[in-house]
Amino acid sequence: MVKEYNVAVVGATGMVGQAMANLLYERNFPYKNLKLLASSRSANSSVNVGGREYRVEETSTAAFAGIDFAFFSVEGDLSKQLAPEAVKQGAVVIDNSSAFRLDEGVPLVVPEVNPKAVSDHKGIISNPNCSTIQMVVAINPLHRVAGIKRLVVSTYQAVSGAGREAMEELSSQSRNVLEQKEIKAEYIPHKGAAKQHQIAFNVVPQLDVMMENGYCKEEMKMINETKKIMGMPDFPVNATTVRVPVMNGHSEAVNLELEDELSPDKARNLLKEAPGVVLMDDTGSLTYPMPVDISGKDEVYVGRIRKDDTVKYGLNLWVVADNLRKGAATNSVQIAELLV
Amino acid sequence: MVKEYNVAVVGATGMVGQAMANLLYERNFPYKNLKLLASSRSANSSVNVGGREYRVEETSTAAFAGIDFAFFSVEGDLSKQLAPEAVKQGAVVIDNSSAFRLDEGVPLVVPEVNPKAVSDHKGIISNPNCSTIQMVVAINPLHRVAGIKRLVVSTYQAVSGAGREAMEELSSQSRNVLEQKEIKAEYIPHKGAAKQHQIAFNVVPQLDVMMENGYCKEEMKMINETKKIMGMPDFPVNATTVRVPVMNGHSEAVNLELEDELSPDKARNLLKEAPGVVLMDDTGSLTYPMPVDISGKDEVYVGRIRKDDTVKYGLNLWVVADNLRKGAATNSVQIAELLV
Repeated sequence: MVKEYNVAVVGATGMVGQAMANLLYERNFPYKNLKLLASSRSANSSVNVGGREYRVEETSTAAFAGIDFAFFSVEGDLSKQLAPEAVKQGAVVIDNSSAFRLDEGVPLVVPEVNPKAVSDHKGIISNPNCSTIQMVVAINPLHRVAGIKRLVVSTYQAVSGAGREAMEELSSQSRNVLEQKEIKAEYIPHKGAAKQHQIAFNVVPQLDVMMENGYCKEEMKMINETKKIMGMPDFPVNATTVRVPVMNGHSEAVNLELEDELSPDKARNLLKEAPGVVLMDDTGSLTYPMPVDISGKDEVYVGRIRKDDTVKYGLNLWVVADNLRKGAATNSVQIAELLV
Repeated sequence: MVKEYNVAVVGATGMVGQAMANLLYERNFPYKNLKLLASSRSANSSVNVGGREYRVEETSTAAFAGIDFAFFSVEGDLSKQLAPEAVKQGAVVIDNSSAFRLDEGVPLVVPEVNPKAVSDHKGIISNPNCSTIQMVVAINPLHRVAGIKRLVVSTYQAVSGAGREAMEELSSQSRNVLEQKEIKAEYIPHKGAAKQHQIAFNVVPQLDVMMENGYCKEEMKMINETKKIMGMPDFPVNATTVRVPVMNGHSEAVNLELEDELSPDKARNLLKEAPGVVLMDDTGSLTYPMPVDISGKDEVYVGRIRKDDTVKYGLNLWVVADNLRKGAATNSVQIAELLV
């Protein structure tokens, strides 16, 4: 008989939390009980999971009693406060915030890349940043064969990463721009920012807060998390992260400088066989991944593979994935699957 | 007394053509007569230039009689056919198509970068591709001081570069997506393409036709034109060009590997003094250029200047300009100004 688990989703009314709950159902995760937790504001609302309505309970320390797996998708501050409590009560926490990602002793896991790292956990396992996950899934199969010496990435990130309100803001701003009306901006570059920018028909070269070194936090996440997941503290990653007026699905232009020769055809063959990757690369028929086609999928899509002749062994890739699914919910559930 | 010239704008009913005519007026270009030429379809329509209505005439070989400067903004095929005819009749042609750009004996000029090249013309001077112009204006002041060894650029390009119909398509597609109606796609990646893609709430990693080598033509333009303008046939440029759902104004994430040290502060000082550049770089106040703010301006805006530590001397820039103005019309008029 398969062992069955008590599972909680914390932040279950958010977009990622709802996706997590539904993925647990869709992927037949062996849960006995599924507890949906959220803030007091959302408590007593109901969420549909696999056709069944669940009543949302208020998150509290007591709510973790008897829970085996707790999937967290809440603000970092709240994760920091509640995850250790859940662990104390015996739960394994899979946390989607950035709170613990760079902590020693907390595995940062992408199942296609570093599945063995899960076993080192002390109760908390971190789910990496969305834009990092899709990139490492795409580059790891190439790195294992040809060695990446340096990586330069520019991102084209959807507003769903900034939450449901940001998606609604993109809709209403778009309508107002088209009708030549005044617009309201509250969520881009991020909620509570000193200055807010229009995202409709615009691009905003900032995600998350700005750091002292002139990088925004999303860029530093890509740089630092990639090093940790790949197990290479000196891996040279340069990132520019940009928000674009896309509802859902992040895209990335990735430039690789390799140790050894790797032809585009060889790279295509490697990616065709790689776990979690779908090759979508036929320039002859103008076929490459784009966010509107990839939203809702669980894999990482790669196209526009071509040589970069400015270095001895260079390669360009275009990488697209659903940031709410593989970039967050799917990866979290896959981490738990490694443990059961 | 200032000499005065007979000037023609060919393709005067297009967006770039109209901008050219108006810039000639705004910048007090010394014209005696201004002749607006277009296809037979647009002949006899009228175009407003500086408050005065001009009747559009049909383009023909005869129309170039007595013309000193002819500004062309038409398809490459038409330029190829008509520009030599205009030259035969004594005109200097400033051509905005890609028809002659890489021809030996045809100067490819960005006045802030290689103004002296104009003097080598044999009747035709080419205006570079929009995304190339703004990039070389931004990097040249840094190159002169610290030497660029290698450049990796990813673009975020507006639909105005694909013409007025593409802008209308972005509007109508956006409306239809918001109202959950069917959409029509005819202009992206380009008119007449074997497959057309949605651009509203999407990003499309292709501009212009796809080439045999897996690059799209816009990428090859950036690579080859940059080499010619900078006068460095071996200049290593790697480009990924992407269309984004922005009406007007191209953005570029530019990564530079330099020969010598150049701190972000030194780079800012160089760009502050550089001709045609506006420095807009204060991460503390979340200030950086974005297309909605830069559309309608004649300068190239640069921000998000920061060190790239993955190479000995690395630097990142974010470059935004109005692709119809500095990327096309303004640069063309500036070329003519060099000659008068």
